[in-house]
Amino acid sequence: MTILAAGQFCEDQDSLVSRQARLACRAGMATTTAGVAGGFVQGNLAILPEKLAGSFHRFCQLNPKPCPIIGMSDPGDPRIPSLGIDLDIRTDLPRYRVWRDGAVVDEPTDIMAHWRDDLVAFVLGCSYSFEEALMEGGLPLRHVEGKLRVPMYRTNIACSPSGPFAGPLVVSMRPFRPAQAIRAIQITSRFPSVHGAPVHLGHPQSIGISDIARPDYGDAVPVGADEIPVFWACGVTPQAVIAAAKVPFAITHAPGLMLVTDLRNKDLAVL
Amino acid sequence: MTILAAGQFCEDQDSLVSRQARLACRAGMATTTAGVAGGFVQGNLAILPEKLAGSFHRFCQLNPKPCPIIGMSDPGDPRIPSLGIDLDIRTDLPRYRVWRDGAVVDEPTDIMAHWRDDLVAFVLGCSYSFEEALMEGGLPLRHVEGKLRVPMYRTNIACSPSGPFAGPLVVSMRPFRPAQAIRAIQITSRFPSVHGAPVHLGHPQSIGISDIARPDYGDAVPVGADEIPVFWACGVTPQAVIAAAKVPFAITHAPGLMLVTDLRNKDLAVL
Repeated sequence: MTILAAGQFCEDQDSLVSRQARLACRAGMATTTAGVAGGFVQGNLAILPEKLAGSFHRFCQLNPKPCPIIGMSDPGDPRIPSLGIDLDIRTDLPRYRVWRDGAVVDEPTDIMAHWRDDLVAFVLGCSYSFEEALMEGGLPLRHVEGKLRVPMYRTNIACSPSGPFAGPLVVSMRPFRPAQAIRAIQITSRFPSVHGAPVHLGHPQSIGISDIARPDYGDAVPVGADEIPVFWACGVTPQAVIAAAKVPFAITHAPGLMLVTDLRNKDLAVL
Repeated sequence: MTILAAGQFCEDQDSLVSRQARLACRAGMATTTAGVAGGFVQGNLAILPEKLAGSFHRFCQLNPKPCPIIGMSDPGDPRIPSLGIDLDIRTDLPRYRVWRDGAVVDEPTDIMAHWRDDLVAFVLGCSYSFEEALMEGGLPLRHVEGKLRVPMYRTNIACSPSGPFAGPLVVSMRPFRPAQAIRAIQITSRFPSVHGAPVHLGHPQSIGISDIARPDYGDAVPVGADEIPVFWACGVTPQAVIAAAKVPFAITHAPGLMLVTDLRNKDLAVL
């Protein structure tokens, strides 16, 4: 995993647009982080009580493609300095979801009232990072062009379970012409900490997707007759797993409203 | 291009199985080199008069995926020490094809009688090297399992022309299940000097292949309903281009009877 240690940020912290985005959230901004702080890594959030954190950590270790950990906190500590010196996980996302027994019970803009000394925060890599690399590589992303959410599907591929955490792999889909699909595989292979290479392409039905026009999450996008649907492991997987586990208490980010870190997308490339 | 300089071979030259294979050819062996000297790079051969060699060299430079040069001789010099200290291109292949005006006029086991002071030899990387990497990666090769020649197809993709050399890209096809196809793209991307990453997958008709069951060269292999046909640029391309150019004189290897070099396949990996 490519993670900068605390103290490795050599720039003036105040000037980082990523930090400014977090400070805006801390001040109450509650809009999507899509397109915010270009070049900086955004992350999915999962917060669990210490009693469940070990099982969830192991779930991530067993399923690194949907659940690539890019940072985590000590129990009860709201800071994750490896992702941003002054980062406070309780306030620095635009909006959160508080879960009890598998149901969302609150969607606050901070979790000061919900924070506990036994909570552990996990930040997981997300596809925004590799999508930036794909676009910089000249590959068109249809959902971005259409201002849609990426289509996502539950598959028949079971994640490796850990404690109460189990469920199907959720994938996101991007259609490409064949030569583009090959290039997209090469580019995303360089970014294992943000889902990495695709898990499937070309035969949706063989991973349990019966109708590509009807995603389980997000919006449908058309796949041309000369195109290949390419499927990546998706960060919705751990959210779905946490919901299905019906754990007594958990907190996640609200969909599309994520943590902006001080890591650079380009620094996640392994080669 | 990953090429060892002459003198970099630190092993006892006599003991190399690659050199022994060449010496056997020199002594008259005229059988396929498929499976010979495992681990060592084999190459396609193209020999042209100096007057045409510049155009052909440029053709290779313009079309590196089908025509990756791994070694070439000086005009009139039958040695290519970067591929083997004692290598003699006139005797060290099992069998040759001598071409005049686009037709094969002789298939000798050496070309001593055809050699001229103005001839330039080009050795081009071949798919045996990346197939070894695929098999070492646990990916099954159907044509190998069936003891067949790989199926090859003329496409509607035009090579960039150079002088008299022009024509369609020829591709080889290997069927894989989707996750295997993704892994095959990653593995072969590491080997740009032996055709590298595939050029296409999934939609044969969009590159001008109307019936995948009827290859233009080699043998048909079945593609399962849950599989993806994956297409790599093929070393038959330059042979077809030389034949189509109807140049007055050329020499190539006979299909499947190639030059065994002292390079190691693993040393061709760029990462």
